[in-house]
Amino acid sequence: MSGQTIDTFREERERLNQVVMKYSGLSIKRFYNLDSQVYREGSLPSKTKELLGLVASLVLRCDDCVKYHIIRCHEEGVTSGELDEALAVGVVVGGSITIPHLRRALQAWDELQDATSEKC
Amino acid sequence: MSGQTIDTFREERERLNQVVMKYSGLSIKRFYNLDSQVYREGSLPSKTKELLGLVASLVLRCDDCVKYHIIRCHEEGVTSGELDEALAVGVVVGGSITIPHLRRALQAWDELQDATSEKC
Amino acid sequence: MSGQTIDTFREERERLNQVVMKYSGLSIKRFYNLDSQVYREGSLPSKTKELLGLVASLVLRCDDCVKYHIIRCHEEGVTSGELDEALAVGVVVGGSITIPHLRRALQAWDELQDATSEKC
Amino acid sequence: MSGQTIDTFREERERLNQVVMKYSGLSIKRFYNLDSQVYREGSLPSKTKELLGLVASLVLRCDDCVKYHIIRCHEEGVTSGELDEALAVGVVVGGSITIPHLRRALQAWDELQDATSEKC
Amino acid sequence: MSGQTIDTFREERERLNQVVMKYSGLSIKRFYNLDSQVYREGSLPSKTKELLGLVASLVLRCDDCVKYHIIRCHEEGVTSGELDEALAVGVVVGGSITIPHLRRALQAWDELQDATSEKC
Amino acid sequence: MSGQTIDTFREERERLNQVVMKYSGLSIKRFYNLDSQVYREGSLPSKTKELLGLVASLVLRCDDCVKYHIIRCHEEGVTSGELDEALAVGVVVGGSITIPHLRRALQAWDELQDATSEKC
Repeated sequence: MSGQTIDTFREERERLNQVVMKYSGLSIKRFYNLDSQVYREGSLPSKTKELLGLVASLVLRCDDCVKYHIIRCHEEGVTSGELDEALAVGVVVGGSITIPHLRRALQAWDELQDATSEKC
Repeated sequence: MSGQTIDTFREERERLNQVVMKYSGLSIKRFYNLDSQVYREGSLPSKTKELLGLVASLVLRCDDCVKYHIIRCHEEGVTSGELDEALAVGVVVGGSITIPHLRRALQAWDELQDATSEKC
Repeated sequence: MSGQTIDTFREERERLNQVVMKYSGLSIKRFYNLDSQVYREGSLPSKTKELLGLVASLVLRCDDCVKYHIIRCHEEGVTSGELDEALAVGVVVGGSITIPHLRRALQAWDELQDATSEKC
Repeated sequence: MSGQTIDTFREERERLNQVVMKYSGLSIKRFYNLDSQVYREGSLPSKTKELLGLVASLVLRCDDCVKYHIIRCHEEGVTSGELDEALAVGVVVGGSITIPHLRRALQAWDELQDATSEKC
Repeated sequence: MSGQTIDTFREERERLNQVVMKYSGLSIKRFYNLDSQVYREGSLPSKTKELLGLVASLVLRCDDCVKYHIIRCHEEGVTSGELDEALAVGVVVGGSITIPHLRRALQAWDELQDATSEKC
Repeated sequence: MSGQTIDTFREERERLNQVVMKYSGLSIKRFYNLDSQVYREGSLPSKTKELLGLVASLVLRCDDCVKYHIIRCHEEGVTSGELDEALAVGVVVGGSITIPHLRRALQAWDELQDATSEKC
């Protein structure tokens, strides 16, 4: 129920990535690899890296990227308090133009919280 | 009828702002206050400030922000001639990449004009 | 079927351009003229200019503009290999934030390829 | 003295516009014409249009464009109180990333105020 | 010596902030307060928040903001390894267009490292 | 003389790239490789790819990137007429906010033309 929008998002993303792979040569494939590499645990924990990806996506105002990192932050055990503070940095850096994306970010977060509490 | 899209927009915006308030700490709440404060009548009239918000939203290419300021401009009594000239500044500053947003801005404006003439 | 999304896109674009013309004064009309003028065959072939428009739209992350230039590139006889290389420049210049737009660009391209092969 | 930076800016701008004209064909020349046309007195006064240009330039974070519109706002008789309110809209819409440009905008404004009071 | 550029940057920033305060009304002053508030220790440590500010500044491509957060990251004890990983997220999200800013970010970091080792 | 600014640009760029390599881990090094890979001759000629990089850099308004691609376009034998048409696409897509970058692009181009004619 509450997880439906998130699930639809994941399926659509997966389906379209297959279209990308159908037409992409070596450069775009390498970019995809690099894109997953930079979020891996290293000197900085994955959780911090996901927060970096989230705030970068918020200030650049990309809903799909924001939603993806919201899901990943949830998986990495980010708390609602931590999320609020990270988003607040993004809103102040990026201004009111980020607010429509903040709304949709927190709607996705709310959905993930509901899905978690239903499972408990 | 003609006001339906605008009404849906307002309700969705209101509903999502409540989700924001559910998760937001003091910083984001203060940002929201500041965001309404800067459009209040002062040395510059509210009408001018709404036009500033509209053009800023157009060049930054945020549909939700553009629609919000289109509604506010309509409430402040902006005429179609004034709106056209403000949008022309935005289109020339921001380039053809703003045109899809110009289209949706004027669609919302057209809807508001229809709703007004129906009431008369 | 396979051409449906593209057709809907064209019709919606045409309908909204009429709303723009209803409210626009001389400046926006002149901008529209200039916008079609710069893609015309000249020292550079139209095909190259459409690729320029496509990559500019990708790095500025405008789905409508990307889709429009994908359709035009198809009309100008751009091959899938050429398209991949142009998009790769865009993805590397613009970063992972362009990937959701890359996905939708290639989905539209895939639709156009299907439509073409059906006709054959 | 106090007007020196502004004067240098004007001369550099003029000199480089001549380089643009040396290499530009009809499209860029038409764009230049359109760019001056949209700020002309019409349904909206020139003063309002310059404020629109200023705020658009601030949120897009272009120092040269900001400085140009600061000079034009000064010529159109914008007061310091009006300027502050217009810039506040820009800062809130565009976020803290605009602050370095706000600093340089107000430095140019300060220089113009000094130059004016010296003349009196 | 090696700290000279950083020192010049700090002094210029301080001097211009005084010009901002000379002309700013309540809204911009409140924005300044909010801007320092969001980086304070909370659910997330200051160090993480400075990294968020750095990556947001990198993807939005603001040299002054990047340099400011580079200095703050240094003060918060960020290591070169952590910095590299945070910047890598920024470069991949924001693309090659961020590379000139990456260069200047690491030049400032290099200067700070030299200044630190001189003191030891 | 006439080549001096271009030469200084190249040296500075080279020097800072060495600072980047000093601090960068595998991800940023891979990104650098990918960044040179996408401009190599393939289905599209290098010349077209450099024009794509130029227009992408212009609409994203990065002076260093614009200058780099201006130099590369010159090396690839782009004519002044071709350059004008590519830049016109960029200016129309990106709007008047790109004009300060257009000015500096054509100043660099002018310098390269002078340097070439001196050699002849």
